[in-house]
Amino acid sequence: MANFKGHALPGSFFLIVGLWWSVKYPLKYFHHKGLKNNRLSRQQERIEIIEGAVKTLFAIIGILAEQFVPDGPHLHLYHENQWIKLMNWQHSTMYLFFGVSGLMDMITYLYFHIVPLGLDRVVLAMAVFIEGFLFYFHVHNRPPLDQHIHSLLLFGLFGAAVSISLEVILRDNIVLELFRTSLLILQGTWFWQIGFVLFPPFGRPEWDQKDMDNIMFITMCFCWHYLVALCIVAINYSLVYCFLTRVKRRAEGEIIGIQKLKSDHTYQSALLSGSDEE
Amino acid sequence: MANFKGHALPGSFFLIVGLWWSVKYPLKYFHHKGLKNNRLSRQQERIEIIEGAVKTLFAIIGILAEQFVPDGPHLHLYHENQWIKLMNWQHSTMYLFFGVSGLMDMITYLYFHIVPLGLDRVVLAMAVFIEGFLFYFHVHNRPPLDQHIHSLLLFGLFGAAVSISLEVILRDNIVLELFRTSLLILQGTWFWQIGFVLFPPFGRPEWDQKDMDNIMFITMCFCWHYLVALCIVAINYSLVYCFLTRVKRRAEGEIIGIQKLKSDHTYQSALLSGSDEE
Amino acid sequence: MANFKGHALPGSFFLIVGLWWSVKYPLKYFHHKGLKNNRLSRQQERIEIIEGAVKTLFAIIGILAEQFVPDGPHLHLYHENQWIKLMNWQHSTMYLFFGVSGLMDMITYLYFHIVPLGLDRVVLAMAVFIEGFLFYFHVHNRPPLDQHIHSLLLFGLFGAAVSISLEVILRDNIVLELFRTSLLILQGTWFWQIGFVLFPPFGRPEWDQKDMDNIMFITMCFCWHYLVALCIVAINYSLVYCFLTRVKRRAEGEIIGIQKLKSDHTYQSALLSGSDEE
Amino acid sequence: MANFKGHALPGSFFLIVGLWWSVKYPLKYFHHKGLKNNRLSRQQERIEIIEGAVKTLFAIIGILAEQFVPDGPHLHLYHENQWIKLMNWQHSTMYLFFGVSGLMDMITYLYFHIVPLGLDRVVLAMAVFIEGFLFYFHVHNRPPLDQHIHSLLLFGLFGAAVSISLEVILRDNIVLELFRTSLLILQGTWFWQIGFVLFPPFGRPEWDQKDMDNIMFITMCFCWHYLVALCIVAINYSLVYCFLTRVKRRAEGEIIGIQKLKSDHTYQSALLSGSDEE
Repeated sequence: MANFKGHALPGSFFLIVGLWWSVKYPLKYFHHKGLKNNRLSRQQERIEIIEGAVKTLFAIIGILAEQFVPDGPHLHLYHENQWIKLMNWQHSTMYLFFGVSGLMDMITYLYFHIVPLGLDRVVLAMAVFIEGFLFYFHVHNRPPLDQHIHSLLLFGLFGAAVSISLEVILRDNIVLELFRTSLLILQGTWFWQIGFVLFPPFGRPEWDQKDMDNIMFITMCFCWHYLVALCIVAINYSLVYCFLTRVKRRAEGEIIGIQKLKSDHTYQSALLSGSDEE
Repeated sequence: MANFKGHALPGSFFLIVGLWWSVKYPLKYFHHKGLKNNRLSRQQERIEIIEGAVKTLFAIIGILAEQFVPDGPHLHLYHENQWIKLMNWQHSTMYLFFGVSGLMDMITYLYFHIVPLGLDRVVLAMAVFIEGFLFYFHVHNRPPLDQHIHSLLLFGLFGAAVSISLEVILRDNIVLELFRTSLLILQGTWFWQIGFVLFPPFGRPEWDQKDMDNIMFITMCFCWHYLVALCIVAINYSLVYCFLTRVKRRAEGEIIGIQKLKSDHTYQSALLSGSDEE
Repeated sequence: MANFKGHALPGSFFLIVGLWWSVKYPLKYFHHKGLKNNRLSRQQERIEIIEGAVKTLFAIIGILAEQFVPDGPHLHLYHENQWIKLMNWQHSTMYLFFGVSGLMDMITYLYFHIVPLGLDRVVLAMAVFIEGFLFYFHVHNRPPLDQHIHSLLLFGLFGAAVSISLEVILRDNIVLELFRTSLLILQGTWFWQIGFVLFPPFGRPEWDQKDMDNIMFITMCFCWHYLVALCIVAINYSLVYCFLTRVKRRAEGEIIGIQKLKSDHTYQSALLSGSDEE
Repeated sequence: MANFKGHALPGSFFLIVGLWWSVKYPLKYFHHKGLKNNRLSRQQERIEIIEGAVKTLFAIIGILAEQFVPDGPHLHLYHENQWIKLMNWQHSTMYLFFGVSGLMDMITYLYFHIVPLGLDRVVLAMAVFIEGFLFYFHVHNRPPLDQHIHSLLLFGLFGAAVSISLEVILRDNIVLELFRTSLLILQGTWFWQIGFVLFPPFGRPEWDQKDMDNIMFITMCFCWHYLVALCIVAINYSLVYCFLTRVKRRAEGEIIGIQKLKSDHTYQSALLSGSDEE
């Protein structure tokens, strides 16, 4: 859907998943830091399966939205020697691959003794790559600004595809996970930016799509978006740390309290039946 | 051979090998999972050698077909200041490198104490790279759709070349092997697709090779082909798993039966000569 | 600032940091060579923090210079439907990312028990990548020589981005560190070269920006700059080695002297109270 | 030197080194296979130093040839507002970097306790990269065939640069070493091919530099050259194996002979002084 909503929808999906990841990965990192065993607990597996299901759900919503908006193709592909609404079909294809990736995530954690680890990352990398791939061939014959603002996305997408592919080998590497998270948030905010620039809502003036200065600004703006994404990841990371420290301290406080109680109790019972121990 | 058969032939070769791999690698993976020793058994080595021989055979068939079709060069390269049928020669060269790769596979497993592991993957990666390399310089001065549909192949080819090169270091990595398999199947189905689009058989109407919509559709279609390839790999993977589980269960059943028989027998003999044990 | 000073400023920054690195990394390498423990001492951590602070300071100076030069934007971005001085804003953005990288360095070593190792390298790689990214879209619509001389920088920048990314996995690898150092020095000297070529100081004649020969010379000149950078790294490396050897020898000399003194003393005391030992 | 000799000279250099490597690396591989210790013996270090010296010598010959041929620049770079013979200067720069690489090889093995392993590979990779880098900017504004035949070289060069860079991490990996060797031989034969195509010796007819068919043939010819390079490496590899096996067998034969002699002798002496042992 080449309008504001058509960019706000995927933007919101990416943002939600990105923000969730920026909380999930630090949590997992701090949880596993003390432990030598790197296997996921049953609870964590359940979270991964839910995440996969949500991803699949988002993808289905996306596909339905692209297909059944009033000017959508309604699942018709070819009619009277003409392809129908190929743009919507391409968007549907992008969503489809993210759906497959969500399914793969679910399968990986449901049947972890059958499915080799790493396949979920390969499918996710392919989904991201195919989004970039379709965008790359997607933006020909458009005004320069439109072309440029979409092609900036490609840097994030191909960067993410490479980074996720690396996770096949270096699974559970917190640096790669945070990098991926920052790129996903960037993508989310950038889709909103595209919506605002190409289809200005609230009756704002249109952007001159051939002005070189606009293109220069948008390039720089992309960098700022990445800075914002980095900041969001950093803030969530430190919030998770503070939260975990406080929880731990309280838990320890309780334990100390209990131990004090216990030791008092022991002390009293020791007093009462002191000679037994000797 | 720039006709339907000239695309169906390599397409079939790639499909056959791809389908075989989608059975072979899961089999190998489940077989080795329980075992610590990663070396191939004598039987597996024999399979690898046969596979190499079949690859070489396919390559020879391909070369002969390209050279000796009625309008082929019949091994003549230069005549009266003119190069003869360079297209066929280029296709022959592609087949030739796959033949060399097949030979290399055979040598690797026949003389495994001499040939360093990994060379077979380097030669295979080179064969795939050279196919892409020749295609890249091959499609200039053609109509846009022809050019585009061939250049989509390059994504699969260069992706496969990188992935196979990684196998030099990460040999026997099931994720890389399945990824390679999916790319090979993609290539097989895509060759058939090219044949159907550029040389419509059964008297179908020709495609307009300059229509932008056709190009957009073909790009998307390529993604769908990859999805199909992924599904084929996934289905074969789970079929192999089910098959192996059933075989194992039956074998265990028989073992239990035999053990029961045995234990009965032991019981009887124990009854007869019971006092001996005591 | 598209003038001589605007290139001399970043050039000097890069040169200073590059020269410092060409001393720091050999020092660290020789220091850790004998030791099995690879963790930094408290003093080395303090040095890293100071380095981060200096990087941040340089970045702030750069941003202020770009913003508040007489013809700068003075922090105004948009005015009367026009972007103001986007070039200066882009340069500010580049400096900004290096500032963030400096901050990240400080945080990494201040809170080393919280921040996962490798994030500082990711942020540095991003800073370098974004410098290249902005330069890439920065040089359109300029005379050929101007375009070429800036785009040569991209080779160094993207090379450095890849090399620094590798350090996430291969941290404290002296080869990668020296390679990065050489690329940074190259960048420093090349900024000076750009200044001299595009804005010849001291009333020198201007370069013909469309002459093909000038472009050919500049390409070659870039290689020579790299050779100089390699030589600087090599010289500093051997100087550090000589210095450390001399220090060690003197220290050992003193120890030997002390030991000699000691042994003399022991000998004398042995003479005096010799029979006690027996 | 844009003539036949100017291509035959580097071609011969590359061929000689390539053929030497195709003997050296198998030798090293088989020698180290039985041994657990991977360190070079004193003799092997001496060979590496000699190889570095020969590389440096070749580079010096190349530079002198480029500078002091009759129509060379004779070390003059700039004269009367004109750059002098920039082509020869660029070729000299290429040779210069290979000379530096040769020097680095010598230093690495002479001062192996000071210089970190891997730096020699970085410098070699840079030399190869810079050759490609200069060629890339070198071939503009030339006839299509000239441009194409030189740019094919780039595939080999950048492939080699990547492969050599990998050796920094995976040093002494026989697969990478043989791959590098094959690319070097390819380069050697290809320089001769360029000479024959662009400057046909022995009064042969000139090639039409704009004919599309010639370009197609040359692309394919490049692949054939690589096949030849692969075959040369394979043949030399098996020759080395046969040679080593025969040497070993003879040595064992002699040992067995000696042992037989010894045992006879022992037998006789045992007969003579048999009672002593008992």
